Amino acid sequence: MISHLTDLTEMAKRREKKTIVVAAAHDKDVLRAVTDAYRQGISDAVLVGDAGKITKILTQLGCDPGDYTVIHSTTDTECARRAVREVREGRAHFLMKGMLGTADLMREVVDRDTGIRGDGLISHVMFFEQENYPKLLCLTDGGMITFPTLEQKVGILKNAARTMKRLGYDRIQAACVCGAESVNPKITATTDAAKLSEMKEEWESCNMNVFGPVGLDMAISKNSCAHKKYEAEGAGEADILLVPTYEVGNGIGKAMLYFGNAKNAGIIVGAKAPIILVSRSDAAESKLASIALASIAAE
Amino acid sequence: MISHLTDLTEMAKRREKKTIVVAAAHDKDVLRAVTDAYRQGISDAVLVGDAGKITKILTQLGCDPGDYTVIHSTTDTECARRAVREVREGRAHFLMKGMLGTADLMREVVDRDTGIRGDGLISHVMFFEQENYPKLLCLTDGGMITFPTLEQKVGILKNAARTMKRLGYDRIQAACVCGAESVNPKITATTDAAKLSEMKEEWESCNMNVFGPVGLDMAISKNSCAHKKYEAEGAGEADILLVPTYEVGNGIGKAMLYFGNAKNAGIIVGAKAPIILVSRSDAAESKLASIALASIAAE
Repeated sequence: MISHLTDLTEMAKRREKKTIVVAAAHDKDVLRAVTDAYRQGISDAVLVGDAGKITKILTQLGCDPGDYTVIHSTTDTECARRAVREVREGRAHFLMKGMLGTADLMREVVDRDTGIRGDGLISHVMFFEQENYPKLLCLTDGGMITFPTLEQKVGILKNAARTMKRLGYDRIQAACVCGAESVNPKITATTDAAKLSEMKEEWESCNMNVFGPVGLDMAISKNSCAHKKYEAEGAGEADILLVPTYEVGNGIGKAMLYFGNAKNAGIIVGAKAPIILVSRSDAAESKLASIALASIAAE
Repeated sequence: MISHLTDLTEMAKRREKKTIVVAAAHDKDVLRAVTDAYRQGISDAVLVGDAGKITKILTQLGCDPGDYTVIHSTTDTECARRAVREVREGRAHFLMKGMLGTADLMREVVDRDTGIRGDGLISHVMFFEQENYPKLLCLTDGGMITFPTLEQKVGILKNAARTMKRLGYDRIQAACVCGAESVNPKITATTDAAKLSEMKEEWESCNMNVFGPVGLDMAISKNSCAHKKYEAEGAGEADILLVPTYEVGNGIGKAMLYFGNAKNAGIIVGAKAPIILVSRSDAAESKLASIALASIAAE
């Protein structure tokens, strides 16, 4: 059980040092996070982008540019392609988006010839640290797959389980979060949740238990479960919240951040290497924790 | 601007005293809330249900059964029908669900011959008091209309605006909460939000401004708006959150309650009288605030 984002950072420090490659690294916020991870012994870095700018920013940040591998690259596409190649050819363990569009980066990631596609689905996992919850909560998929089919939900859950296994989790509890506990044939989220809960064999290999449909309360509050007399393995103590649409994930995630003062760290999983997409507005702690998470998940 | 649920209670006390009618009132939790409202001078009560049980519970609660009108009624359907008739014939100003199913009550509410349908849509408004937000937030529709069409969203917004007007609001800010700010033709929530934002004339009569699509952050955080350079009238200071589906509403609402320690009060609006559906797990303060809200909205 992991309670805090700093636990991820500490865990990453204790593991073998990895190498991150950043696509379009010529940005102060991005380099601050990457050099922070370097200083903490989490990862070395290959910085793809405008070499002049990168060197200048590194110096401004009080870093020695000699500690990093800088690969000069001008266009966004070139930056993305080269960064992906570093992973593909084994010189970097995971990838981070710098100053370029997510679509530009992902296009190179999924390229059938030169990309780093995996066998399965590519999805997003976001971990939240919450004052009111004793352990990290993994919310998925909050953005990569907007309206997943049942089959995609299976892939999303497997990706999340794989990530948690890397984090050292043994038994994993996953809740299919819907608007209620009852199965309504007209509401796909609830029928999918019922089907997912029944796929016991499917989850055996992940050592995961999937339950639902449940409202968020039955997923995370044992008190509420007792009150409503809702019983299911894992009820009230979910590790993973599977949301039916990205809109639900976005809403719950932002409510946690803005109303619950949560902290978060997220990565894209399912490709041959984890991918980090931090946004400018993320706190420094979140950015570092995302790098730590990717570093652990890259094993 | 209203900040706390207790403001609703105080406001209701200052207004003319109303009469609540409870369908299937033979329940301790329900009667505790109703007698609480009576004692605070918010509402008199007509109690429809098992008269013997009702009288007994009232006595147990230290109340004088003589203070209330008790109408003996045995089956759920009979309780619902009779309670609705009290409203229809002007002996009660608003309706509360006691120990019967929501569907049983609503069937009688919407009955074309004997019910209390209004001209428009029936929808749910839930008000949240949040430590991290300076005023009450009205979330709609979190349950009545599960997957609203554009037309239904118009009705939902109008119902919410009408309720806020009764609460004394002048200018109202309504955010169409989606997963992001960009309009994506493949994502109905975003195209609907764009259309709703453009219906300026439609909202004039409500003195309401509607903006979106926005993520929850752009609806409720001025800091985040400044950070993302998102500008729109009302951005970051929403009074109303219009959600695209009940699943989104349920998720955001429960995240506020469980992670943000929010308090809530809600009613169903759009019928000829407000309807209160409190649940057993609601805090006493929530139940009383819901009655107060209905009492104000009944004017």
